[in-house]
Amino acid sequence: MIPKTPLSLSDIRLATVYKLLGDEELARAKSETICIEQTIEFPADLIADDDIRAKIFGQIESFERVDESHFEAKISYAVESSGFELTQLLNLIFGNSSIKPGIRVERLELPESLLQAFKGPRFGRDELRNYLGVEKRPLLCTALKPMGLSAKSLANYAYQFALGGIDMIKDDHGLADQSFSPFEERVELCAAAVAKANAETGFKSIYIPNITAPANQMLEKAHHAKNTGAGGLMIAPGLAGYDIMRQIAADDEIALPILAHPALQGSYVLNPDSGISHHALFGQFARLAGADATIFPNHGGRFSFSKNECQSIVDGTEVEMTHLKPIFPAPGGGMSLDRLEEMSEFYGNEVIYLIGGDLHRHGDDLAENSRRFRKIVNNSKV
Amino acid sequence: MIPKTPLSLSDIRLATVYKLLGDEELARAKSETICIEQTIEFPADLIADDDIRAKIFGQIESFERVDESHFEAKISYAVESSGFELTQLLNLIFGNSSIKPGIRVERLELPESLLQAFKGPRFGRDELRNYLGVEKRPLLCTALKPMGLSAKSLANYAYQFALGGIDMIKDDHGLADQSFSPFEERVELCAAAVAKANAETGFKSIYIPNITAPANQMLEKAHHAKNTGAGGLMIAPGLAGYDIMRQIAADDEIALPILAHPALQGSYVLNPDSGISHHALFGQFARLAGADATIFPNHGGRFSFSKNECQSIVDGTEVEMTHLKPIFPAPGGGMSLDRLEEMSEFYGNEVIYLIGGDLHRHGDDLAENSRRFRKIVNNSKV
Repeated sequence: MIPKTPLSLSDIRLATVYKLLGDEELARAKSETICIEQTIEFPADLIADDDIRAKIFGQIESFERVDESHFEAKISYAVESSGFELTQLLNLIFGNSSIKPGIRVERLELPESLLQAFKGPRFGRDELRNYLGVEKRPLLCTALKPMGLSAKSLANYAYQFALGGIDMIKDDHGLADQSFSPFEERVELCAAAVAKANAETGFKSIYIPNITAPANQMLEKAHHAKNTGAGGLMIAPGLAGYDIMRQIAADDEIALPILAHPALQGSYVLNPDSGISHHALFGQFARLAGADATIFPNHGGRFSFSKNECQSIVDGTEVEMTHLKPIFPAPGGGMSLDRLEEMSEFYGNEVIYLIGGDLHRHGDDLAENSRRFRKIVNNSKV
Repeated sequence: MIPKTPLSLSDIRLATVYKLLGDEELARAKSETICIEQTIEFPADLIADDDIRAKIFGQIESFERVDESHFEAKISYAVESSGFELTQLLNLIFGNSSIKPGIRVERLELPESLLQAFKGPRFGRDELRNYLGVEKRPLLCTALKPMGLSAKSLANYAYQFALGGIDMIKDDHGLADQSFSPFEERVELCAAAVAKANAETGFKSIYIPNITAPANQMLEKAHHAKNTGAGGLMIAPGLAGYDIMRQIAADDEIALPILAHPALQGSYVLNPDSGISHHALFGQFARLAGADATIFPNHGGRFSFSKNECQSIVDGTEVEMTHLKPIFPAPGGGMSLDRLEEMSEFYGNEVIYLIGGDLHRHGDDLAENSRRFRKIVNNSKV
């Protein structure tokens, strides 16, 4: 037996809503298992009737049927068990239970005393609009590609996109620090190209390099990008980890908007009965980690997300999380100009349209194609 | 059209074997899509007959039927597209394709010119045996828990485990830097407790703190642990990112064995038709990132891995990867003393047995329970 343990903890708890696959008996057993697995990970019968049992154990706050074969359990944990750190918070929410089938994280309910540990998005929707000088319309974004082009060629594209009035010109997520387009050279040339176009147009385009990189290079790359004139940063938390994104977002010297890219994260959402919901992963987690916009594949493109899943991401970008600002959904993944009207009906104004390859599809004058993109958005009815 | 692009790249390629769900036509289409999605992510018809097409595009090296509804495609990429970085390598292997259903990374075939960029496991199996002074038998590992105990209580357990001859005494993965057991205090007390026991027994137990933490604290925690007498480090790459593990494993001042913990990684392996195979994730990825042992839930415990999946992990810990040393599989997850004989038949000697809660199940004398663990392993027939 573990000796009785007195603990001086607050009564404040954080909660996670899990979707559980199974009949009522199985789902209830799963919810009870989660209470142990996510906390003491220890035979519960060896724990005395003490503070560990009363406070550290997960507690089932509610248990409801969702449909014939699914239940939702809201389980709470002592806020202190998170250590007020993002890494341990993710662990507390889903560390070991991620390895058990039929358990899915649906959404997080996090108290203010926990959220105070996180700055969250530095810009969020309103400040990003101020920063870019765009009052109401959707924001436009494109990607520099294909992989294999030189920094000079990519910078030439960046110049044309900026001339045409694209707000955000980002690296494709496959551009890292390869010999054909080294990071520092690319950032220098692309930032200069966008600045040159801005000087000509009076418009504010920003260049957003991908700073996803080895752990010991990310801060350095972020600072370098900032000092070289980048207007934002892209990070793939599935490759680099969520917490380095949080650290960079919170850095007052860097102070640039952050785009989160979903690379390597698909496995979390693809199976509807396990993993993490689109809402939590691309919405709530991204905001906890300081993203100002969350990139995801739009429905009807070359990926498989449904309309409902995309809507749940939008909900996750704006669901109340005390001081964590709402952020922009940035649907992409094979989007094209001819889908803008339909997307406009679905997303309204609070969206970043990410159109990459399709801007190359309408002739070689990328500035002209970009103007067309801009014009369609300006004329959209929302 | 993208203008013709000459590229000075080697002819060396890395390869990934993907398992594809579908009939032959669908699987072939998927393999062709991967070649584009993982590289240029751009309309292929806009790429000239040039070096981007010849070298940057993924290339299908082989395509074979596995069973009625699955095919395996080996797809190769220019080694330079990886940037010789772990983050971009993971991205190149599976970044966007992780978001598409019916595609699973089965195994990696990485050329020496790429692997030279990675030190891999510092110890691996043989050096970890030397370090611990254990010639042939399986290694014994246990975890300090439950969450909620004070550093002092955990250190008391560590002392007893070490007295009883457990080789590796690790933090439970839920122990981070919480108020009830602050990291620095815990490391100090537990390392001292294990050293005290070692002085009494003449045996070498090591204490392995969990250093999974916010990005800006991990290196500091690793150094602090080393300087305070920790004998190894545990990191959960699913929480902290793979590359920080690589960086810490490669740090010559830290120079401690690394245990990889699978927290938050279950979603990669649970769906047999998407994600990443057990073999690649817990074997090959762990070695690329410098782990000396890879923790995973054994079959027949409270998790769902099958015997075949556990075997595939073992294979991944030792499959040839040029200079990347074979590492220890460390099956755990609700293991008990009464399963050791059966586990011995399955795993042989090249294994770390991870038994946590069950050591508390046989009376309150943990040193005696640990001796029993040791004795069973010593007497096992392998």
